[in-house]
Amino acid sequence: MVARRQVGLLVLAAALAVAGAVALESCAGRGGTADVGAIARERGLTDADIVAAVKTYQPTGRLDEYLMFSSGGHGGQVLVIGIPSMRLLKVIAAFTPEPWQGYATGADEHREMMRRARVAGHDITWGDTHHPALSETDADYDGQFLFIGDKANPRIAVIDLRDFETKQLVANPNMGTDHGAAFVTPNTEYVIESSQYAVPLWNEYADVDRYQQEYRGLVTFWKFDRQRGRVDEAASFSIELPPYWQDLADAGKGPSAGWAFINSFNGEMATGGIESRKPAFEAGASQNDMDYLHILNWQKAAQVAATPGRARMQRGQRVIPLRTAVDEGLLFLAPEPKSPHGADVTPDGRRIVVGGKLDPHVTVYAFEKIKQATEQRAFTGNDAFGVPILDFNAVIDGQLEVGLGPLHTQFDGEGNAFTSVFLDTKVVKWSVEPLQVLDEIGVHYNVGHIAVAEGDTKSPDGKYLVSLNKWAIDRFSPVGPLHPQNFQLIDLTGEKMQLLYDMPIGVGEPHYAQIIKADKLNPQLVYPVGTSPGTMAQARDAVAGGQERIERRGNEVHVYMTAIRSHFNPEHIRVRQGERVVIHITNIEQAREATHGFAIAKYNINLSLEPGESQTASFVADQAGVFPFYCTEFCSALHLEMAGYLLVEPRG
Amino acid sequence: MVARRQVGLLVLAAALAVAGAVALESCAGRGGTADVGAIARERGLTDADIVAAVKTYQPTGRLDEYLMFSSGGHGGQVLVIGIPSMRLLKVIAAFTPEPWQGYATGADEHREMMRRARVAGHDITWGDTHHPALSETDADYDGQFLFIGDKANPRIAVIDLRDFETKQLVANPNMGTDHGAAFVTPNTEYVIESSQYAVPLWNEYADVDRYQQEYRGLVTFWKFDRQRGRVDEAASFSIELPPYWQDLADAGKGPSAGWAFINSFNGEMATGGIESRKPAFEAGASQNDMDYLHILNWQKAAQVAATPGRARMQRGQRVIPLRTAVDEGLLFLAPEPKSPHGADVTPDGRRIVVGGKLDPHVTVYAFEKIKQATEQRAFTGNDAFGVPILDFNAVIDGQLEVGLGPLHTQFDGEGNAFTSVFLDTKVVKWSVEPLQVLDEIGVHYNVGHIAVAEGDTKSPDGKYLVSLNKWAIDRFSPVGPLHPQNFQLIDLTGEKMQLLYDMPIGVGEPHYAQIIKADKLNPQLVYPVGTSPGTMAQARDAVAGGQERIERRGNEVHVYMTAIRSHFNPEHIRVRQGERVVIHITNIEQAREATHGFAIAKYNINLSLEPGESQTASFVADQAGVFPFYCTEFCSALHLEMAGYLLVEPRG
Repeated sequence: MVARRQVGLLVLAAALAVAGAVALESCAGRGGTADVGAIARERGLTDADIVAAVKTYQPTGRLDEYLMFSSGGHGGQVLVIGIPSMRLLKVIAAFTPEPWQGYATGADEHREMMRRARVAGHDITWGDTHHPALSETDADYDGQFLFIGDKANPRIAVIDLRDFETKQLVANPNMGTDHGAAFVTPNTEYVIESSQYAVPLWNEYADVDRYQQEYRGLVTFWKFDRQRGRVDEAASFSIELPPYWQDLADAGKGPSAGWAFINSFNGEMATGGIESRKPAFEAGASQNDMDYLHILNWQKAAQVAATPGRARMQRGQRVIPLRTAVDEGLLFLAPEPKSPHGADVTPDGRRIVVGGKLDPHVTVYAFEKIKQATEQRAFTGNDAFGVPILDFNAVIDGQLEVGLGPLHTQFDGEGNAFTSVFLDTKVVKWSVEPLQVLDEIGVHYNVGHIAVAEGDTKSPDGKYLVSLNKWAIDRFSPVGPLHPQNFQLIDLTGEKMQLLYDMPIGVGEPHYAQIIKADKLNPQLVYPVGTSPGTMAQARDAVAGGQERIERRGNEVHVYMTAIRSHFNPEHIRVRQGERVVIHITNIEQAREATHGFAIAKYNINLSLEPGESQTASFVADQAGVFPFYCTEFCSALHLEMAGYLLVEPRG
Repeated sequence: MVARRQVGLLVLAAALAVAGAVALESCAGRGGTADVGAIARERGLTDADIVAAVKTYQPTGRLDEYLMFSSGGHGGQVLVIGIPSMRLLKVIAAFTPEPWQGYATGADEHREMMRRARVAGHDITWGDTHHPALSETDADYDGQFLFIGDKANPRIAVIDLRDFETKQLVANPNMGTDHGAAFVTPNTEYVIESSQYAVPLWNEYADVDRYQQEYRGLVTFWKFDRQRGRVDEAASFSIELPPYWQDLADAGKGPSAGWAFINSFNGEMATGGIESRKPAFEAGASQNDMDYLHILNWQKAAQVAATPGRARMQRGQRVIPLRTAVDEGLLFLAPEPKSPHGADVTPDGRRIVVGGKLDPHVTVYAFEKIKQATEQRAFTGNDAFGVPILDFNAVIDGQLEVGLGPLHTQFDGEGNAFTSVFLDTKVVKWSVEPLQVLDEIGVHYNVGHIAVAEGDTKSPDGKYLVSLNKWAIDRFSPVGPLHPQNFQLIDLTGEKMQLLYDMPIGVGEPHYAQIIKADKLNPQLVYPVGTSPGTMAQARDAVAGGQERIERRGNEVHVYMTAIRSHFNPEHIRVRQGERVVIHITNIEQAREATHGFAIAKYNINLSLEPGESQTASFVADQAGVFPFYCTEFCSALHLEMAGYLLVEPRG
């Protein structure tokens, strides 16, 4: 007998996803129009089942059981989505300035943060977020921090989940781009970032014809100081890697704690050149049947990096040279099927699952066998850089055919795995032991990553899976040549997977997501009055009501301002052209949602001041004239009256 | 007997909104948990009704009947939302650079667009979008263009609905900020932009103590050239206004075509100064019982502006001085109750409804009476600037008490009006003739504007109303001190309004929205190969497959590149440090959704190339080194192989 909850989910699948089922059979159609009732009857579901499902899953007025943190891809941000309602609760700015949140649109603390994250001497005003990682304690999400990597300009963002704000951007000086970022070790000792496209490591410049001699991959272990809530760059270290194009990473847990796994493609070390009639990268990098899974002992590497003389300082970063990594037994390679994408550690930490995009199988590696082989030095040889290669057949548990283009694997808490299959555009459910396909469901279309509730922890919840589909053909009303992507919510509680909902993503191009139980989070709803979000402590220049003032110090005009419904104090700021204006502004409200904005028209400044928040914004009043400032967040019936004038008297 | 569709909606209201109803009675609660079935039974609805509702409104796999275009507030963008599914289909970048769309993140055409929209000599990288206006033909949305105003830096964006992209930003040189923007005349002859906070108009600088002498309001009528799809700045004109703080605008239609209406607050001409123990703006601007509705004859004004000697050129803009506007009979004032927000013309163009935020009534003006009074010059006097004032009682049809804080009014096609009431946090339905309250519904919480399907046309559809609520207390899982706002979908088809759905808005702070029938839009799904979106014509430098090449011209390196799954051609770009690199890149795909991104690591460039699109991005290769470029949009199984190298050889 099926439990009541499962009936509910099954029925909601019928009720809400019927058109999905129809469209599966008719890909070119304009979404489904079939009769929900007919489908429900076909599946033996009654109207009462539908009612029960609606009762359970109707979102309005209900809080969600889970929150999903999804990358926004080259939008440069993080999306926060309620599960199961599939509603977008917030977009967290990370690498791209965002004025609604007042992120890098005027506040001095953000200007300083962006300045530190400059790359190659350039201001960078966007990012390509790929993989979010929730902080972990004992291999379980602890709800404290979120990390995410920027592929384009290899950087890591640190987001504090007390206020869902980005606190730090860390730029990697020794990579060209990253891809395996961010992934955390089981107690968030380190945040892992591994490179993608190799670049010269030890020299500034080398032509691509010196690829094998000069170009290198890299993995950086960023030390996380949980107390400070910041990456400690000085305590971090990197390991030089061969110039294969490293891809995704994962940290071991349980028996494999202390180790990390990174797969790669372009084991061929192809260098492209289609313009000169050489094979394009897509051809050159897809010739061999096997690439290399990188197996790293980060715990030992941390000791080596700390030993004087073992690591080299390169552009301010401690880098363990490849030779040293090999000599110290920090790095091993295992063959892995063609052009893999995911390298995913099972919840028990005993296995690593790899999906080779150009191979129809998932390959399951046994960590115990890997460990044994490394200890016994049972190698089949070395690669061109001297890195020992393990015997493929000796370190795998087996392979399972799942379809064309297996990409990324997630797990539930009952020994099952779920793999996204890009070319077949489906999700396959299979058991890890024995290796056996259990179910599959078509998705719309071209799934990249998938996320299961609590899926990257040692004890996944299962229940829901979100399929992050790249294309959405005909599932939504057309909105021009740039189409939304499609997140599909899939029910995992029944024997068969069931499609519950299609959510268009029209705000970025997500790559990966993690889903955490909502009750693990405990966000602040207001700040204590005078809080600087940059430090989460009292701002030095915050003022209380009654302390507002303007102080002149040489060429600087310091304005100590408060904001409260519905006025700023002061309302007039008089300066002379060319003076530096430094505005210290505190929202002295403590009512939830009583956020005030602070915009100075024509000086390109907008702050978002949540209740209690204090910020400083400084600028040179280079233009004479009369510039209104006003509250940009509709705060009260007299919101429009919340304004003032910056008066910049012309010079001489 | 209630029609089947209405039953469906009523039931969905019960099924989906039950917690809303519960929360209404218990505002402090954490969302509702009541039993849907119980509520349904209470309302006399059967389970069959719920099934019918799900069948009608379940969104997955269905296309939406309407699209809503909503401002994103100080996010600086436009949100496109499906109705009734309340799914976010796309965020259109307008004033704020946005890398997912490749908007102002590297393309030369956007750099030029942003350069023209500089304000006061400053680059402006954000906007405060307020009021979207769909283009109209004969006072009906025609689905061709969308306009939206930026309050902070008074500007207008023009969005082409063929590709949902922003094509033009127009900066207003004579305003401090705007608010009454954008609103269109019935055939989109003009886009109306009226100022908010007055600034000196004819002189660059005047202290605020010379407010009445020097500060002025302004309304600009931007001439729209539909053929070119652009505002024609040279053919546009402005009218000087008294320094009241003008607020919302609307254009007349039908009998009132040729006229525009703008309300205002701060008729007191308060100048603030709380820091000097003067009344704050919120107090000073709220003293009088009446402010002024501005009544403008724009058709006549256009003739006056075109008459040599009548308008003055000020900062490149033709401005009709206030004195001339009065003498020519272009501007009249009618008293309006305290601090109004909306000035909304009825579908038949016969009435204007004003909600005075600090007055419990809506006030209904009869255009016929206004016209008669202006023709008969039946004035009660002039304001301090000589503008004639109409007799309040002579020009109104009547007033209707709707509650505390009436704000904005929309209409259906059956003679009913809907007014948002901010302080009472509800929407009131009333009939225009006779003036009579029919229904009200509580919303969660603090509604600003509302939008009804096709609500600003001469023939609204009714059916759905969206309440744009500013606060969402407890309706969604908490996500830190900056909370999402809450769009509530309300069913208008029954006798009683019914809440259908709560949609969190976590990506901006919307002000106003318009809802258009989806079938009025006909967006392109791909571009013809080689299209420049800036001109919607063939790009001069687009190349077809086989024509790729690199040309050196003096210090410039021109790269003629193509993108197709899954390679760029060329894959290597070799330049010397200090050379200018000009990349002309064409996505030569014609498959829907086969978008490619083009990012150059560390040079702060990301383009989004939809199928067929051609763009040029140029930059100085000031930094030597090896810089991967790659496709940022997951396009195929070999997407990660779609990459290349920019090789910048060091100088000397």
